Amino acid sequence: MFDAYGTLYDIQSVAAVTEEAFPGYGEIITQIWRIKQLEYTWLRSLMRRYEDFSVITRESMAYTLKVLGLKNDADVFERIMEKYLHLDLYPDAAATLAAMQGRKLAISFQRLARHAGRAGAPQRARARRHHQRRCEKNLQAQPGRLRADRIHAWRGARDVLFVSSNPWDACGAKAFGLKVAWIERVKPEAMALACVKNDVIPPLTMFKALRTQMDELGLEPDYRIRALAELPGLVAT
Amino acid sequence: MFDAYGTLYDIQSVAAVTEEAFPGYGEIITQIWRIKQLEYTWLRSLMRRYEDFSVITRESMAYTLKVLGLKNDADVFERIMEKYLHLDLYPDAAATLAAMQGRKLAISFQRLARHAGRAGAPQRARARRHHQRRCEKNLQAQPGRLRADRIHAWRGARDVLFVSSNPWDACGAKAFGLKVAWIERVKPEAMALACVKNDVIPPLTMFKALRTQMDELGLEPDYRIRALAELPGLVAT
Repeated sequence: MFDAYGTLYDIQSVAAVTEEAFPGYGEIITQIWRIKQLEYTWLRSLMRRYEDFSVITRESMAYTLKVLGLKNDADVFERIMEKYLHLDLYPDAAATLAAMQGRKLAISFQRLARHAGRAGAPQRARARRHHQRRCEKNLQAQPGRLRADRIHAWRGARDVLFVSSNPWDACGAKAFGLKVAWIERVKPEAMALACVKNDVIPPLTMFKALRTQMDELGLEPDYRIRALAELPGLVAT
Repeated sequence: MFDAYGTLYDIQSVAAVTEEAFPGYGEIITQIWRIKQLEYTWLRSLMRRYEDFSVITRESMAYTLKVLGLKNDADVFERIMEKYLHLDLYPDAAATLAAMQGRKLAISFQRLARHAGRAGAPQRARARRHHQRRCEKNLQAQPGRLRADRIHAWRGARDVLFVSSNPWDACGAKAFGLKVAWIERVKPEAMALACVKNDVIPPLTMFKALRTQMDELGLEPDYRIRALAELPGLVAT
């Protein structure tokens, strides 16, 4: 079972669109947006005020533009949101899934349906099917889509391997009782080097410092790999 | 009811100690530490793996030093943790509470007991009483300490005013049904100005962009004030 955002899809690939929309702000928009997007999923869960992931994505973008004092123009806003449906795949994603077609594969992606906040249930279902088809086409594979309401059937399943590059996600899946392979994309040595005694750092470095290194939550993934490409070899052993 | 950390106590006041311990890293340690500390409270609640706030404070500091490639020396570590029990008050905190002594005041602070992770229950209770006394002495006031297990009695209470400068906290209290005064310490204009088309920014600016502006969670505080000093005037009306 694969996590989607940050694992198969490169969330940093929105930066070109945000830079085009707001020259000089592309990187900081991308980082604040992603950090707040995740925070909002956690906070809304804790407050039991659940919202579709697309609503949270929109609200975290609204927050980001507000903080930066940028004009929230409807057309520009929609163009940026659109990119979130067309994130670039990591270079090794399609080949990795293709190499594992003999196994039962699933993607655990949060529901990102276009305009879901405003649309009715049929529109949302259509948008999700659209997203699913695009996802399969991109991946050149047909992994099943994991429905959130079915995930509880997986609790503690020992024959499931959850794959994520997101540390909190890897920890969450461990707490849930799954076997976990964590993709450590940013090497600790490179991370430390990027932060050496700098008064100022790029927002991307701050993002990496906050969200790419294994968390200290008393949980450890079963496997650490450096790239998706290592996965077929790992599960073959 | 006052939030403590970030509202009465200035969490940025650990920066001098972290800078002394790790020259050139004081500010980035302080920001990553605080951001992760809060994340860990949210993630542990979601995973239902609760820990004392002092354990979370230690784990988020361990994460921070690891990310920055800094040596986790036991003595240095304890010296930094100690500062968390002696945070500076905001300049207007004591006078504000003194001006409101006619009212029933409470502080909602998470339990930060020294060495609580290693100590037994009696030691922890003693450390908490110690912290409480120090807190009262600092504030020159005797606000009641709000026990987490009693907070549910406050749900929806219309005669309670929750005061916090933390946006997620203000939203959480609103979702909980309380009246809320939010202290907007960082003005939106100053925030936007600090981020103008900079490739690199100080970690403190990134912290402010993430954690001082009102969140987009579909909730609004009842009152917005700019400083604690405005509070006696607000409740008198």
